[in-house]
Amino acid sequence: MALPKQSDDFPAWYQQVVKGAELAENSLARGSMVIRPYGYALWEAIQSGVDRRIKRTGHSNVYFPLLIPQSLLDKEADHVEGFAPQVAVVTHGGGSKLEEPLIIRPTSETIIWATYAKWIQSYRDLPLLYNQWANVVRWEMRTRLFLRTSEFLWQEGHTAHETADEAIAEARMILLDVYRETVEEDFAIPVLAGRKTESERFPGAIETLAIEALMRDGKALQAGTSHYLGQNFAKAYGVQFLGRDGQQDFPYATSWGVSTRLVGGLIMAHGDDKGLKLPPRLAPFQVVIVPIYRDEQKGTVLEAVKRISDSLGDVRVKIDDREEHRPGYKFNEWELKGVPVRLEIGPRDLEAGQVMAYRRDTGEKSAVPLTSLPSAVPDLLADIHRSLFQSALEFRSEHTFAPGSYAELTDLLSSGSGFVQGGWCGSPECEDKVKDQTKATIRVLPLDSEAQEGHCVVCGSPAIELATWAQSY
Amino acid sequence: MALPKQSDDFPAWYQQVVKGAELAENSLARGSMVIRPYGYALWEAIQSGVDRRIKRTGHSNVYFPLLIPQSLLDKEADHVEGFAPQVAVVTHGGGSKLEEPLIIRPTSETIIWATYAKWIQSYRDLPLLYNQWANVVRWEMRTRLFLRTSEFLWQEGHTAHETADEAIAEARMILLDVYRETVEEDFAIPVLAGRKTESERFPGAIETLAIEALMRDGKALQAGTSHYLGQNFAKAYGVQFLGRDGQQDFPYATSWGVSTRLVGGLIMAHGDDKGLKLPPRLAPFQVVIVPIYRDEQKGTVLEAVKRISDSLGDVRVKIDDREEHRPGYKFNEWELKGVPVRLEIGPRDLEAGQVMAYRRDTGEKSAVPLTSLPSAVPDLLADIHRSLFQSALEFRSEHTFAPGSYAELTDLLSSGSGFVQGGWCGSPECEDKVKDQTKATIRVLPLDSEAQEGHCVVCGSPAIELATWAQSY
Repeated sequence: MALPKQSDDFPAWYQQVVKGAELAENSLARGSMVIRPYGYALWEAIQSGVDRRIKRTGHSNVYFPLLIPQSLLDKEADHVEGFAPQVAVVTHGGGSKLEEPLIIRPTSETIIWATYAKWIQSYRDLPLLYNQWANVVRWEMRTRLFLRTSEFLWQEGHTAHETADEAIAEARMILLDVYRETVEEDFAIPVLAGRKTESERFPGAIETLAIEALMRDGKALQAGTSHYLGQNFAKAYGVQFLGRDGQQDFPYATSWGVSTRLVGGLIMAHGDDKGLKLPPRLAPFQVVIVPIYRDEQKGTVLEAVKRISDSLGDVRVKIDDREEHRPGYKFNEWELKGVPVRLEIGPRDLEAGQVMAYRRDTGEKSAVPLTSLPSAVPDLLADIHRSLFQSALEFRSEHTFAPGSYAELTDLLSSGSGFVQGGWCGSPECEDKVKDQTKATIRVLPLDSEAQEGHCVVCGSPAIELATWAQSY
Repeated sequence: MALPKQSDDFPAWYQQVVKGAELAENSLARGSMVIRPYGYALWEAIQSGVDRRIKRTGHSNVYFPLLIPQSLLDKEADHVEGFAPQVAVVTHGGGSKLEEPLIIRPTSETIIWATYAKWIQSYRDLPLLYNQWANVVRWEMRTRLFLRTSEFLWQEGHTAHETADEAIAEARMILLDVYRETVEEDFAIPVLAGRKTESERFPGAIETLAIEALMRDGKALQAGTSHYLGQNFAKAYGVQFLGRDGQQDFPYATSWGVSTRLVGGLIMAHGDDKGLKLPPRLAPFQVVIVPIYRDEQKGTVLEAVKRISDSLGDVRVKIDDREEHRPGYKFNEWELKGVPVRLEIGPRDLEAGQVMAYRRDTGEKSAVPLTSLPSAVPDLLADIHRSLFQSALEFRSEHTFAPGSYAELTDLLSSGSGFVQGGWCGSPECEDKVKDQTKATIRVLPLDSEAQEGHCVVCGSPAIELATWAQSY
């Protein structure tokens, strides 16, 4: 399959990689996708890293229902305004019209906080540190595999705290210690962590934090969000607790999530014209072994391949011994599928006591002695991880700009050059003006606002924030 | 909380255990449940064992959409007849009425086989060995936590094969090597594996296999099912492949699943009047340590507890150092929650270089020297597993009957005595007669029908099967 060049048509490249690498496809139900085995194995690896960190930081998993009585959604004003237009509604069940329609969860704050009302009575019941892995549905008109689908898979954390400070600290901890760490350490993708502007906040949140990653077409992808919800949901759902001071108070909330959209980010942050480049920690297969032989050598080579695979211990190895395809065909396929390391093993290699090792990230090929393979392969994988992160970091540096004028700002943003940073006066008018002219938005503000010396790059008034703009997914 | 006695009111006992052990509760959406952290940790342990075995036997995980166009359901006649009355229907999305209603999957054969039509062209594409972990919705009028809820969590495997023999072997392998092994080895519950009668088959199946476990009230619980679907779904969804013989043929299918109902089985197969008895391999906490001290001894005891916990390595330990509760309160709570081993540690124990170990299954208590604890605890856990299995097996033997007459059969079944085994002539009339009179059904027939010497316990005609009847959940 011929892959379009990234530089010619990035969206077509993306679509063809998702298809060619057999990650996912559009389903027969409009707006939903089928996640194929290779794509789902990636998602399982992602889940495993996120889940481990969520538990390490003291959270437990739970499960709340898919279907939510419509009246529950209506209780938090901003939240219903944000989500009502996107919900799928169940009106019939068991052959009858329902007395009250049920919505399919677009997110679960409503049913969770309505339930927390039963669980929280005293400060002794706090904090509640819960998470769930679930599917959600948000009606979408224009969908794109992994990036925007009507149904998607995610985790959503929902915590309740005694004080605002504790909840704010939780939202930040999740952003940095769970999400940033996962994306940087498992995905090998550097991220900007920061606050969203008011216009980009989650419906019902006091503050939305996010990590943003730069894709290879210069667009930003929001890779995870963590919200400080204040007492909004506690008040909407009547959740109160008896405080240490003997007074009734409303608990403080956070919610936070990452989704299957991370798979899209993985594709677009590392991929090249040959296809995927998977970071070793997430790759379903870290090494593919392609045996090369003529018929009479088959037995010897396949035995050696098996031995070598066994010698690699915990490394996830795929042996591609399909007879109906030639080695060259296999090379292309596994490059498209992004396997970090390919080992080519033929009779002459075996005679020389070595194998040829090809690394997908740099395209370099080198002979490795069989005896050192058990240590050389893990070292190579570790080096590939570092090198992928470094490349992505350099790409981001090269595509981060500090324009000197409004004209330069809009030129950079209109051409989708990457992250564009400049002073901002904090006014929604300046934010809207840039968005209207370029479609770009402020992706993040620094986590902690620092005094700014310069001026708003839009209006020239004194700046109060350093904003990072970009086109985005 | 006072637990009703099992012998007084088993359903009330069940409900109170689920509530008191904080496993789950009814949700605000009718028919759905909230799975609480302790219950969800059990489900995660169950998933882990099932998933490992599904992958070990060559299957990959995938994900198909939640929502299915209604027209897809209508294509397999038996299937639609079985499921149409139970579906939840989405009629509105994104603020508009949908052109075609979508159903929430009650099971996914329809959308999966409609998709397989795109994936299967040649015998080289077979077998497809896929599984998904998902939520499904089947409208239920009367629900019971874990046992029967409108939404439940499960895995559903869907495979496609070149030949009938291969598909039949797959359905059996899943039943025995995945489901039976999981329930016997992880749950410590012995099961009967066998075929279902025609009237108890999955809608659209040629043959349904099941494992059945006996609960402590004498009722059977279907703990897992595996279906051989023949070519029914391939024909309904137009899935054909080019065979080795150059001819087009329809592939042969299986589907199989286990669900959150297994948690209900776990509760009812082992529990007693004090609450849950968790098998060590699934227990979220295998050991709870309860420190016992007066104020001035607190530091010494808690330090020792920490050291002892660390010495237990991979054992899942909970230290209950809550100050607001007395040891006796904690003992009751962890007995209700079924933790297999409790270690009680006080100053006098520490002076004597020992701890008191209590095992939940037998109620025995013994002193264990601190020095031997790291090996004694895993040994104790292994023994508890064996002992739970043995108890359940003995209970089943004591509650399995071979009636000599029809009157005895119906007496045994009407009083819910357990498994009742006898010859059956194979006629639906005899099956219906027993069901009408006692509400009991044939739970399983042997996996391989063997020649029967005796007579049908219902009508006296020659028997062709050995049937096992029971009341069931």
